[in-house]
Amino acid sequence: METFFSFLERRVDDCSSLLCIGLDPHLADLQHPTPEAALDFCLGIVKETSAYAAAFKPNAAFFEYFGAEGWIALQKLIAAIKEESKKLGSMIPIILDAKRGDIASTAEAYAKSAFDHLGADCITLNPYLGKDSIDPFLGYPEKGAFLLCKTSNPGAGDLQDLSVLGATGRSPLHLYEYVAQLAQSWNTGNNIGLVVGATQPEALAKVRAAAPDLWFLAPGVGAQGGDLATALKAGLRKDGKGMLINVSRSVARAESPKRAAAELRDEIIAVKYDLDY
Amino acid sequence: METFFSFLERRVDDCSSLLCIGLDPHLADLQHPTPEAALDFCLGIVKETSAYAAAFKPNAAFFEYFGAEGWIALQKLIAAIKEESKKLGSMIPIILDAKRGDIASTAEAYAKSAFDHLGADCITLNPYLGKDSIDPFLGYPEKGAFLLCKTSNPGAGDLQDLSVLGATGRSPLHLYEYVAQLAQSWNTGNNIGLVVGATQPEALAKVRAAAPDLWFLAPGVGAQGGDLATALKAGLRKDGKGMLINVSRSVARAESPKRAAAELRDEIIAVKYDLDY
Repeated sequence: METFFSFLERRVDDCSSLLCIGLDPHLADLQHPTPEAALDFCLGIVKETSAYAAAFKPNAAFFEYFGAEGWIALQKLIAAIKEESKKLGSMIPIILDAKRGDIASTAEAYAKSAFDHLGADCITLNPYLGKDSIDPFLGYPEKGAFLLCKTSNPGAGDLQDLSVLGATGRSPLHLYEYVAQLAQSWNTGNNIGLVVGATQPEALAKVRAAAPDLWFLAPGVGAQGGDLATALKAGLRKDGKGMLINVSRSVARAESPKRAAAELRDEIIAVKYDLDY
Repeated sequence: METFFSFLERRVDDCSSLLCIGLDPHLADLQHPTPEAALDFCLGIVKETSAYAAAFKPNAAFFEYFGAEGWIALQKLIAAIKEESKKLGSMIPIILDAKRGDIASTAEAYAKSAFDHLGADCITLNPYLGKDSIDPFLGYPEKGAFLLCKTSNPGAGDLQDLSVLGATGRSPLHLYEYVAQLAQSWNTGNNIGLVVGATQPEALAKVRAAAPDLWFLAPGVGAQGGDLATALKAGLRKDGKGMLINVSRSVARAESPKRAAAELRDEIIAVKYDLDY
């Protein structure tokens, strides 16, 4: 059995890319405010960018928005990504961006929903409720979870930047660094990663120091102002991997999403080359 | 226009109850593993307990579990609670237990899903992403949000009990107390409450000290071992309100859910009487 991050690394090797393509069907991007239009919008991006995608990341919120029909569209989208992967001859991991977090028996229901029913390979989770809220997801040994650590939104610092007292005798550290340390220690099954915004390179570097082995899912390059080269320098693992650069609007709204994705993939390769990876 | 907590207080007065009835259709409680059975299970509890319910709290996870059909069942359940309320002549607030938390435009989609499409009056939210992840929900002035503060699960302490450094010169405080202080300061629209487990009365008292005005949603009495009188003593506001005691399994699995709810309602009245409220 392959763990999620082995699966991801195989795909990264297959496509020479660290790009995660976000599938966020904002209403503003749709021709009609319908679940069918949301699905078509996402399928268009998938078809254009699949050769350059190390992973796809559909965001549950934009499907929930449409209720039951949105749920069906999300299911269809995930199935279509798998079909597209088969055509390519290289399966592309699907990360469900759902940011769930609940206590044990409820978390089990969310895990079944994401992994069994929707067929996602990985999910984003909120760590505020602690380890036992993550465990039901880790119970699927071939699936993965990215825990929110340091997000890219303006209010991220309200809690995440707080100084917390760690073990006795140690200096205070940021809450997000503490989360990174916890995640590193919880990752006994090669199935935990971290969400770390690309907008704050100093924070990225601190998270990398706290969690040297983990994969990061890094949003914030492009529309949110993060610089690609700076982010990669701060966050890449020693093996030149360990970082998925998530892009959504900058690809989806490009004149040619295909060309935008190809250029970003090549830019990442060039930066890695400059950094001697 | 009435704020959510005015609406809740009106209902609390109408039914002389502080009970929130959780609607958690665990698979183990269903005759068949179908969304119809989940809906029937919840409708049965609603019919039996509506006279004693200050609020109902359906948990999104157990409906998401069934995918699109679960979503339809959740929508039907919320509509049915409203019908039942009309028959009673007193509207019962519906709190969607969804524990969402995402950045601005995504949070907007979740807010529309919960409030516009599903028709919930209030939602539970995770505060880890900060104020701007809460704002889209607060943008609905007649709706409410309970922020996770100190939860009742075993792993709650992993993050929530950390000592954080607040303002300069102040002593360190627990992360959950800091969240309570933030929530109190954010509550300019009478629409923010806190989720505080009833299992740890000392923590409840600390949260009450940090957030003297806010309503608490307190799970953990009954199945999880919290003592009702101790919890009320630690958490009630000075006006004898400010606390919803959430019960799920202990009512749902009782021989007569109606009698179980009535007894709990009366027990709360008796405790309040003893405490001179």
